[in-house]
Amino acid sequence: MTPNTMTTDNFSLLDNLAIELPSWAFGNSGTRFKVFGTPGTPRTVEEKIADAATVNRLTGLAPSVALHIPWDRVDDYAALGRFAADQGVALGTINSNTFQDDEYKFGSLTHTDKTVRQKAIDHHLECIEIMGQTGSQDLKIWLADGTNYPGQGDIRGRQDRLAESLATIYQHIGEDQRLVLEYKFFEPAMYMTDVPDWGTSYAQVTALGERAAVCLDTGHHAPGTNIEFIVAQLLRLGKLGSFDFNSRFYADDDLIVGAADPFQLFRIMFEVIRGGGLDADSTVALMLDQCHNVEEKIPGQIRSVLNVQEMTARALLVDTDALTAAQEAGDVLGANGIFMDAFYTDVRPMLAERRAAKGLPADPMRAYAESGYAESIAAVRVGGTQSSWGA
Amino acid sequence: MTPNTMTTDNFSLLDNLAIELPSWAFGNSGTRFKVFGTPGTPRTVEEKIADAATVNRLTGLAPSVALHIPWDRVDDYAALGRFAADQGVALGTINSNTFQDDEYKFGSLTHTDKTVRQKAIDHHLECIEIMGQTGSQDLKIWLADGTNYPGQGDIRGRQDRLAESLATIYQHIGEDQRLVLEYKFFEPAMYMTDVPDWGTSYAQVTALGERAAVCLDTGHHAPGTNIEFIVAQLLRLGKLGSFDFNSRFYADDDLIVGAADPFQLFRIMFEVIRGGGLDADSTVALMLDQCHNVEEKIPGQIRSVLNVQEMTARALLVDTDALTAAQEAGDVLGANGIFMDAFYTDVRPMLAERRAAKGLPADPMRAYAESGYAESIAAVRVGGTQSSWGA
Amino acid sequence: MTPNTMTTDNFSLLDNLAIELPSWAFGNSGTRFKVFGTPGTPRTVEEKIADAATVNRLTGLAPSVALHIPWDRVDDYAALGRFAADQGVALGTINSNTFQDDEYKFGSLTHTDKTVRQKAIDHHLECIEIMGQTGSQDLKIWLADGTNYPGQGDIRGRQDRLAESLATIYQHIGEDQRLVLEYKFFEPAMYMTDVPDWGTSYAQVTALGERAAVCLDTGHHAPGTNIEFIVAQLLRLGKLGSFDFNSRFYADDDLIVGAADPFQLFRIMFEVIRGGGLDADSTVALMLDQCHNVEEKIPGQIRSVLNVQEMTARALLVDTDALTAAQEAGDVLGANGIFMDAFYTDVRPMLAERRAAKGLPADPMRAYAESGYAESIAAVRVGGTQSSWGA
Amino acid sequence: MTPNTMTTDNFSLLDNLAIELPSWAFGNSGTRFKVFGTPGTPRTVEEKIADAATVNRLTGLAPSVALHIPWDRVDDYAALGRFAADQGVALGTINSNTFQDDEYKFGSLTHTDKTVRQKAIDHHLECIEIMGQTGSQDLKIWLADGTNYPGQGDIRGRQDRLAESLATIYQHIGEDQRLVLEYKFFEPAMYMTDVPDWGTSYAQVTALGERAAVCLDTGHHAPGTNIEFIVAQLLRLGKLGSFDFNSRFYADDDLIVGAADPFQLFRIMFEVIRGGGLDADSTVALMLDQCHNVEEKIPGQIRSVLNVQEMTARALLVDTDALTAAQEAGDVLGANGIFMDAFYTDVRPMLAERRAAKGLPADPMRAYAESGYAESIAAVRVGGTQSSWGA
Repeated sequence: MTPNTMTTDNFSLLDNLAIELPSWAFGNSGTRFKVFGTPGTPRTVEEKIADAATVNRLTGLAPSVALHIPWDRVDDYAALGRFAADQGVALGTINSNTFQDDEYKFGSLTHTDKTVRQKAIDHHLECIEIMGQTGSQDLKIWLADGTNYPGQGDIRGRQDRLAESLATIYQHIGEDQRLVLEYKFFEPAMYMTDVPDWGTSYAQVTALGERAAVCLDTGHHAPGTNIEFIVAQLLRLGKLGSFDFNSRFYADDDLIVGAADPFQLFRIMFEVIRGGGLDADSTVALMLDQCHNVEEKIPGQIRSVLNVQEMTARALLVDTDALTAAQEAGDVLGANGIFMDAFYTDVRPMLAERRAAKGLPADPMRAYAESGYAESIAAVRVGGTQSSWGA
Repeated sequence: MTPNTMTTDNFSLLDNLAIELPSWAFGNSGTRFKVFGTPGTPRTVEEKIADAATVNRLTGLAPSVALHIPWDRVDDYAALGRFAADQGVALGTINSNTFQDDEYKFGSLTHTDKTVRQKAIDHHLECIEIMGQTGSQDLKIWLADGTNYPGQGDIRGRQDRLAESLATIYQHIGEDQRLVLEYKFFEPAMYMTDVPDWGTSYAQVTALGERAAVCLDTGHHAPGTNIEFIVAQLLRLGKLGSFDFNSRFYADDDLIVGAADPFQLFRIMFEVIRGGGLDADSTVALMLDQCHNVEEKIPGQIRSVLNVQEMTARALLVDTDALTAAQEAGDVLGANGIFMDAFYTDVRPMLAERRAAKGLPADPMRAYAESGYAESIAAVRVGGTQSSWGA
Repeated sequence: MTPNTMTTDNFSLLDNLAIELPSWAFGNSGTRFKVFGTPGTPRTVEEKIADAATVNRLTGLAPSVALHIPWDRVDDYAALGRFAADQGVALGTINSNTFQDDEYKFGSLTHTDKTVRQKAIDHHLECIEIMGQTGSQDLKIWLADGTNYPGQGDIRGRQDRLAESLATIYQHIGEDQRLVLEYKFFEPAMYMTDVPDWGTSYAQVTALGERAAVCLDTGHHAPGTNIEFIVAQLLRLGKLGSFDFNSRFYADDDLIVGAADPFQLFRIMFEVIRGGGLDADSTVALMLDQCHNVEEKIPGQIRSVLNVQEMTARALLVDTDALTAAQEAGDVLGANGIFMDAFYTDVRPMLAERRAAKGLPADPMRAYAESGYAESIAAVRVGGTQSSWGA
Repeated sequence: MTPNTMTTDNFSLLDNLAIELPSWAFGNSGTRFKVFGTPGTPRTVEEKIADAATVNRLTGLAPSVALHIPWDRVDDYAALGRFAADQGVALGTINSNTFQDDEYKFGSLTHTDKTVRQKAIDHHLECIEIMGQTGSQDLKIWLADGTNYPGQGDIRGRQDRLAESLATIYQHIGEDQRLVLEYKFFEPAMYMTDVPDWGTSYAQVTALGERAAVCLDTGHHAPGTNIEFIVAQLLRLGKLGSFDFNSRFYADDDLIVGAADPFQLFRIMFEVIRGGGLDADSTVALMLDQCHNVEEKIPGQIRSVLNVQEMTARALLVDTDALTAAQEAGDVLGANGIFMDAFYTDVRPMLAERRAAKGLPADPMRAYAESGYAESIAAVRVGGTQSSWGA
């Protein structure tokens, strides 16, 4: 019953925690029924970066920003990188987009028409070129490709074309770059999705080579899926490239990570740690991918990175020696009890102290609320077109 | 193994089959990722009605069109009714919309703010007024109300306010009118939906009175839900007001009814028949509610009503006397075999003959393709704004 | 960030927490693949009661024991009651069993054969008679009735027969007794279950009368179902009779309550409190219904009642005034933050103090481990047949 | 609308259809709540084989019988093989069992205790030895290994031990033999299953070598999983070893294949054909794995193989040239229509003719009912212990 205490060793792992923010989290998003706008929403990529930098300033947890092409296309990426650096953040993962052009209605990298496939491939080559200019390491590919009706597409043929298209793209991935392939159970395709599960992503990236890996989005699984198992498995196989963090009750709800099931996030982070994903030499990239449909966006991002930090801290509290002993003794309740003891411990006071010691606000949510930033951007960002998934 | 043959009695029930088409099925729809436009998409409610009338002309199955307010708001509903009558169809159910105004971000009939609730109530009173002008019988209420995060709303209080708002609306429902309350498992709310299941809709409409009933949308259930059970139960309780037909593999996919699981549609229609829902005096209204995201819209609607007809015809083939005998004998495989025998019978030739006898095209899909209608509307409907969920 | 503190008021509600233990939790249970036996498993109902009393002695949370007929049938229930009282516990809910006789293969209260229905009705009358002798208040009915194949049974007819059978049983329910009807999504029936959801149970018990209510088993829902919503709704409708607590990742896993998703248990207890379910005059009965397939049984029950207590304590920490204010202000993150603040607070030290103040062990799990009880029953309970679902 | 006609080519593929029957399908099975016995249930493996041979005699579809060790352990496998041959069937897949010994409570091939792992490995070596004597090609491994509570086991460590154990077993697999590894979403483990998905099975068998492949049980997936996609993917990867056919509405319901969703079975068989799984040189083995809990067992098996045959025949009717053309034209409804046209065609008369031409009964279900076999075994098989999962 005595709560665990974080050891110095564990603290040092917590220092490795860095969570990339997606630029599009600061724009408007919503459901197919309605997208609500809010005052102060960024109109430009620079404004998105400024918002992301605010999250990092208050939390010390979010040192980089992912871009989405074409939503974040600019003329001068070097200048954009300098702008970001001035704000204290780096440019991160480049996300491609092959789901909003009319040509992609029936697929992109999997399309039966070679012309459309080439267009989609070329888009990825553009992304790789941008990566060179931004210094980004990862090209993240999430495909909307799939079909809505049985018979609409040739499942097998689409998979073969996917492999061919990916191979072409992979040839352009630089020595220090990676291609990460995201999977998703369903949506927007309603019958068959071309990369629906980790097995498919794993099989595809394994065929590509060492610089290709899987991206695990925590909201992209069938009901009941044990996600921490997949985390453990992909780490074991050396193919867990990155995370897209969010949470869900039903489908790809894209809620704030940890909001729907904090215990699940705890279990996931426990397996990340167990598999070396927080080690200094880890190549697992952590990123948020969420939609703040009804809540404020910047504090939504702050809440998100704090949730990851809190659940990581709790996971670091697990007394792994005692756990192993209980597991080997077949002591089910003992092992579960050791595990839960860490989860049930309130780490917030410890984390607040830790923040204060680093010159960060003890309570980043309150600090943001009191900062006047929200009022300031609402006053300044008037006119123009608020960013959303469409722009 | 000898296939059943439709008896004269069964044929007469098939004549009672009438499926209302939603005006919005002819506009563009899509996912939160992309809405694809297509040539010939209606710009006005009159063009939607013309398309719906085309479906009815070719199938004889779709004698009425449901309207959505405000999407289908016009100045003169009497004139709209005459326009529809000229096209051979009637105006049907009026569907309200309380999910696209900014005020409804946190609820409509359930909102904590009385002003917002009153606005939503007033919208429904406008709908009832329109019903008077169109001669519509049913006011259908589907609410997007709900919350995305635990703690965001007071579940219990929202339910009480819902009851109060519905009671106010119900007072204005005329003697020959009905209020039908649709339920939905989730979306757009991601944590808690205020009318998430048939039990909630049933409890709410029962509290209202005799002219309130449940609307069952076949895509609005949790994974694995036995929908035909709910059909049987609501018919038994006298509270099955209407159907929104569509099909799904995952969530509220809004695919063509019968496309995902024709056997399920067969089972549903079997219970409809079993419970008297196709009888001459039945008050169960059948309607489509689908999204033709990637397929052509008019043939999509034709395919849909044909699917309902085909599965209804198969369901009518069940030898119910033999089935009852097998059930009472505890002959599991025998009973199942009798049931499946009807499902496995190809009714299409019979239905084609029946159509021809009524002066309808034997193959409505082919008749549409050869009619030149698609080409004609693509040529004529140029300029303007294509209808979608937004307009 | 400042953790809430439990107010005196809240503490007093915590004193109302009483969780009934099922006698069968102390017997062996398992899956269809294997039932593992363990040393010390009770052979008699008296030994089960002794184990349950041990849980109560160490936790002060479990003052009564539910019986299952015929598993716990004895000749002299008055004597059994005295035995229980000597152990410090009372006899509670009587659970009927209509799923293990060969006659029930195709149903019990819903069977097409009147003789079988009467046998099942008579069994319930016997249970009511036992209730008179044990002073039990609740007759709990869970039915395995259902079908495995489409067509096997007449869904509608079965529902009508269920209503008739229940009405007959209800006539024998005494003035101070209740009939509680449990629902279950599926299992052992694999296609159609006759009481599959709360709506069906609600409709059936409402038809019976005031002394009939719904039993909500937390593991008996479709994937993704929002259980706290159902809790709130049934409390609102005045028909939440009782809980069967357990937890699940997949189906009716019957794991220790709170083990799979402690946050869900917190949300459920919040709605119980919100709806008056912990008030002094509440008629909501709390009970465990779990299977300790691989873990030790007695500490499994201790862990379970502690989990309910801990999550109830956390739920009592919610600052409801602040929560209401945030909800009314549309402050999504603020409201969620207030809610989560309570959940994230470690209540264990407070509860340990509270226990000590009442003369209970501060750490019941440790107290049990050190008590020697497990070793004692393993030594004494040798020979005979270990209790299980079969006996 | 003109129904397709089976071409000679397609017929020849239908001749390749051979479905292995599991010996245990003829024994009693059930749920954790109750196992119902029936007159005539086999007491010995010979009686099981006799029943299986009856299915084959009436359908011509089931030329082999899978054995389960230890349930079907005999002293003289050569004699057993001769007995089977006399009945017109061969002995097929050997299924191991590491889920019913007390030592396996916490795992078998994944257990932390080397002694238990070795015991489980040795059991598989015994199975391989039996394969040598029976001439069986496949060793099928389904593991119940997993955990019920978070923290109970080390997910990663268990996976590593699984790999090591499998590698040891694989070393003994002969040149003409295969190891097929089955995956299952959950049950009997309720939190974490060690081989929960096709990705895990694929990664494990790929590490073993060419003579290891995946077994796909159609009932072992998360809700909503697109199984035909997995079929297509595994065929593409060359790792689809075998099928365990059954169907389900909820979990691993083990219902008659095709009973829950015949359209899904059609889609699965379409992908089997598409990927060469019915070709003469195919190495994909088809097998049933079902539980006849409430229905008669022998006709249950007959119904099952007929369902596979019927859906295969329908799948062979798909006009693949027209389908490809429609797919390439982006004609969603056209492609779906071609696909559905085949599914909606009643193939039963054609198959009856085909059977008659081969000297088989046109209606195997009726032929069985009229054969007197059921009455005969009920009369003869008196005394002894009916076979079940336990023996």
